[in-house]
Amino acid sequence: MKKIRKAVVLLSGGLDSTTALYQAREWGFQCFCLIFDYGQRQRREIEAAKRIARRAGCRYRVVSFRLPWGGSALIDRRRALPRKRSLEEISRGIPPTYVPSRNTIFLSFALSYAEVMAADSIFIGAHVMDSSGYPDCRPEYFQAWKRVVEVGTKRGVEGRGIEIVAPLVGKSKAEIIKLGVRLKVPYELTWSCYQGGREPCLKCDSCLLRAKGFREAGIEDPLVRGEDEG
Amino acid sequence: MKKIRKAVVLLSGGLDSTTALYQAREWGFQCFCLIFDYGQRQRREIEAAKRIARRAGCRYRVVSFRLPWGGSALIDRRRALPRKRSLEEISRGIPPTYVPSRNTIFLSFALSYAEVMAADSIFIGAHVMDSSGYPDCRPEYFQAWKRVVEVGTKRGVEGRGIEIVAPLVGKSKAEIIKLGVRLKVPYELTWSCYQGGREPCLKCDSCLLRAKGFREAGIEDPLVRGEDEG
Repeated sequence: MKKIRKAVVLLSGGLDSTTALYQAREWGFQCFCLIFDYGQRQRREIEAAKRIARRAGCRYRVVSFRLPWGGSALIDRRRALPRKRSLEEISRGIPPTYVPSRNTIFLSFALSYAEVMAADSIFIGAHVMDSSGYPDCRPEYFQAWKRVVEVGTKRGVEGRGIEIVAPLVGKSKAEIIKLGVRLKVPYELTWSCYQGGREPCLKCDSCLLRAKGFREAGIEDPLVRGEDEG
Repeated sequence: MKKIRKAVVLLSGGLDSTTALYQAREWGFQCFCLIFDYGQRQRREIEAAKRIARRAGCRYRVVSFRLPWGGSALIDRRRALPRKRSLEEISRGIPPTYVPSRNTIFLSFALSYAEVMAADSIFIGAHVMDSSGYPDCRPEYFQAWKRVVEVGTKRGVEGRGIEIVAPLVGKSKAEIIKLGVRLKVPYELTWSCYQGGREPCLKCDSCLLRAKGFREAGIEDPLVRGEDEG
């Protein structure tokens, strides 16, 4: 009997992590979604993530925490979100939306969940192409985790390990979207906007990168389709 | 002008982390204490940690989270805490109080705090001697973090790094206590018991290891002194 491979999937409700989830499913993993409520100024992505997990037929868990030291415009309402920046501006340096050590915190919870569920793998939708300056989105960062898992977990010490998989790490947004369309990712359920309105603002960095991706992929974004028709 | 070195200190309110805090202070660090509320069945250690931070004249932050997947008798009241085990039993294998990836989660939050405070170091009171079987208390585990910091944080990429310091890692409980007495650690404020009563139960693994440490150090535990006199 073939053993079912299990994966914990970090699911933010955005485009990338949802594509990573569908990639893991296509590769035959039984997926356990891990959703974080860390005080994002907009709450829509959490609801989006739950809906996506249900649509994909996967169990999910929500972990809540706050960073009392703030440090990011994404969780601190006193800091302004960047708006209407050029794509060149967006690609320069670490943006004010950077949350210190966020991926490290996310992965550490995923590791705990994976230990308890006896999962082989952790999937994360991070990628380097469109978001330069995030040190914790690069292949060498995920590689560094390998050793922490090997020596720091029961499973690792026993030689079975937990692999951290970043299937999108070298892809552009357009490539991710093309892959997702092939995998039948329900992009209409995803939420990328840093604001929490009823519709995406189309002005924040995240909306602009998403729009660029769909444009370059030559695909219509099902989330903003209505706008074009209006 | 000599630059003040800053450290984030993981402070549980127990004997080890309190000694680590006083060690960091003696070495000249300005300390920022990080206290976790992760649903411990007993809440006393959180209050103990706050009192210790105040006594030491340090700022502290409390981070709250829950692990919805449980996995440990320390946070799951349906699981029995071990009681009255022999010291040989305690030292064998991974105990039911092991919280999967706890130190990894703690260190990832510490890393975030250290990034925001521009701290050079993170102090953790873990040690291998008395608690065998915890993979995330060994020197090679802390060593593995080095690479994650180097490549995964802004500070690391800039070549300044954040050092993870485990000053007690090779020490026995008795050696830790002797060190702490020299450092004038207020052990009467610390709380080690897994139960949350008014007095330590003196029967759980943690109480038994503490008692053994004080016995071997030839020092009276100020927390249970009353019992001896009663």
